[in-house]
Amino acid sequence: MHADPDLPAGLPEVADTAAVRALSALRGPCPAFAPGEVWLVGAGPGDPGLLTLDALAGLLQADVVVHDALVDSRVLALARRGAQIRFAGKRGGKPSMAQADISTLLIELARSGLRVLRLKGGDPFVFGRGGEEMLALAAAGIPLRVVPGVTSGLGALASAWIPATMRGISQSIIFTTGHGAEDEDNMDWAALARTGQPIVIYMGLRKLEAIAQSLMSAGLKADTPAAVVASATLANQQIVVSTLASIAKDARIAQLDTPAIVVIGDIVRTRQRLMDAAIRSQAAALEGTVAPVHENVICES
Amino acid sequence: MHADPDLPAGLPEVADTAAVRALSALRGPCPAFAPGEVWLVGAGPGDPGLLTLDALAGLLQADVVVHDALVDSRVLALARRGAQIRFAGKRGGKPSMAQADISTLLIELARSGLRVLRLKGGDPFVFGRGGEEMLALAAAGIPLRVVPGVTSGLGALASAWIPATMRGISQSIIFTTGHGAEDEDNMDWAALARTGQPIVIYMGLRKLEAIAQSLMSAGLKADTPAAVVASATLANQQIVVSTLASIAKDARIAQLDTPAIVVIGDIVRTRQRLMDAAIRSQAAALEGTVAPVHENVICES
Repeated sequence: MHADPDLPAGLPEVADTAAVRALSALRGPCPAFAPGEVWLVGAGPGDPGLLTLDALAGLLQADVVVHDALVDSRVLALARRGAQIRFAGKRGGKPSMAQADISTLLIELARSGLRVLRLKGGDPFVFGRGGEEMLALAAAGIPLRVVPGVTSGLGALASAWIPATMRGISQSIIFTTGHGAEDEDNMDWAALARTGQPIVIYMGLRKLEAIAQSLMSAGLKADTPAAVVASATLANQQIVVSTLASIAKDARIAQLDTPAIVVIGDIVRTRQRLMDAAIRSQAAALEGTVAPVHENVICES
Repeated sequence: MHADPDLPAGLPEVADTAAVRALSALRGPCPAFAPGEVWLVGAGPGDPGLLTLDALAGLLQADVVVHDALVDSRVLALARRGAQIRFAGKRGGKPSMAQADISTLLIELARSGLRVLRLKGGDPFVFGRGGEEMLALAAAGIPLRVVPGVTSGLGALASAWIPATMRGISQSIIFTTGHGAEDEDNMDWAALARTGQPIVIYMGLRKLEAIAQSLMSAGLKADTPAAVVASATLANQQIVVSTLASIAKDARIAQLDTPAIVVIGDIVRTRQRLMDAAIRSQAAALEGTVAPVHENVICES
């Protein structure tokens, strides 16, 4: 135990105490990570600056970090020296750990007395299987802390200058997934389309042609604005803006790769309005903002 | 300018350089806040631990912080000594600054050469008017950085142990608002209900009776699980779990106050499954997790 008032009570001796002390001095006492505990933590969309303070507190204290494929290496580099870094992710189309095996691994690591940080890209509960892992951990009696993160869909929209909601354009926003559900072929795209509200699709790039067809069959206009944001918030971020009818083809031409967020709806036009406004006023003034690396603007605003 | 390699290039002399240096040592160089720039930043749902690293970097460098009503005082306390803290928020039913006046204030502060941090509860673009402010700033040629945050809906769900998505229960999640849109009375609750997907309602507490009626008229069953999470992630967090038919009455009986997030759909049942699993295994093992202060569990799991 430490007597230092800057340190949380019960701080593990093994943690990077100098770093935890520094973080506590900046933000107030960090939560303490107890041995045998699992923290289920969102790493945000990619950029380490979008990590939360509690996520960093977890990285500075964890004995083992079990991460998925979407966690950036610069985020993993923030873990305390000596922490084990284990990959337990899934990537579409590649062999990977079964979900039950990941939950079992987390339980075994915790039972062996380690501080286990389960780190997931984005928010752990938005298409991240965090709920399943939480259920398995709760059933096993493992003490648990949940740290939500900036979900990738919102991170992607913000960094593409597409506000998620705008009065006069939309009243809601729908988050859905294009891949990964056991019942994915039963997805009721028509019901989503009929709301008339913008749709943000996680893991939708590979099936984008079929998804766009389903949405158009359900009544969404072919010229509905659509965009794909690939590698959102990272240096290799790519944005393709198009229409519902052409977005799958245009994403292919641009050779976009996963991870990617698709957004469909009139809010996409706001990006062009924002860029036009900025250009009209002072193009030079925009330096230093998150700028798209690649663009292919097809839709008209 | 500073020669210190731990400090971002162009760091303002006025900033809390020791703090910025400490933060940069923990996470890598912080982005520099230039005079005359506006950062549009999400503060997350309330708990300062859910602030992002970039948001903290902004607080440590800003000359003026213009915040809304939903930003916790402990978050504001992280601003550098000497920073002006200005309130420019809106609260339902109370006199408040018009949106256009807030945008004008931000522009004037930036034009006077200040580093302006516009800090909003949750994510700035999820029912936060961030898009409108961004358009005004872009049109005025103000250099701008966008820092997304943990949106309050996801923060509330995570801290109430309600996973936002769960396979076999839902394939999507809808975020909507119960208040604040000019066209709020035109909200098509029926179209949202017909998706069969869970609905997360921001600012929905005051109109909950009417919203629940609309959703039931559109076909959602009276016994659909529903919950309200008030003051999510804060010490005075309150959770009421009920059914669609009774949630408005039960929230009233519990005297819940705003800010509050409403969630309607079968995912709410997962909370009870999680708590049952944890209780069955080892109730004591749950110490240290975010626990509800108030509960009123009516629905059966």
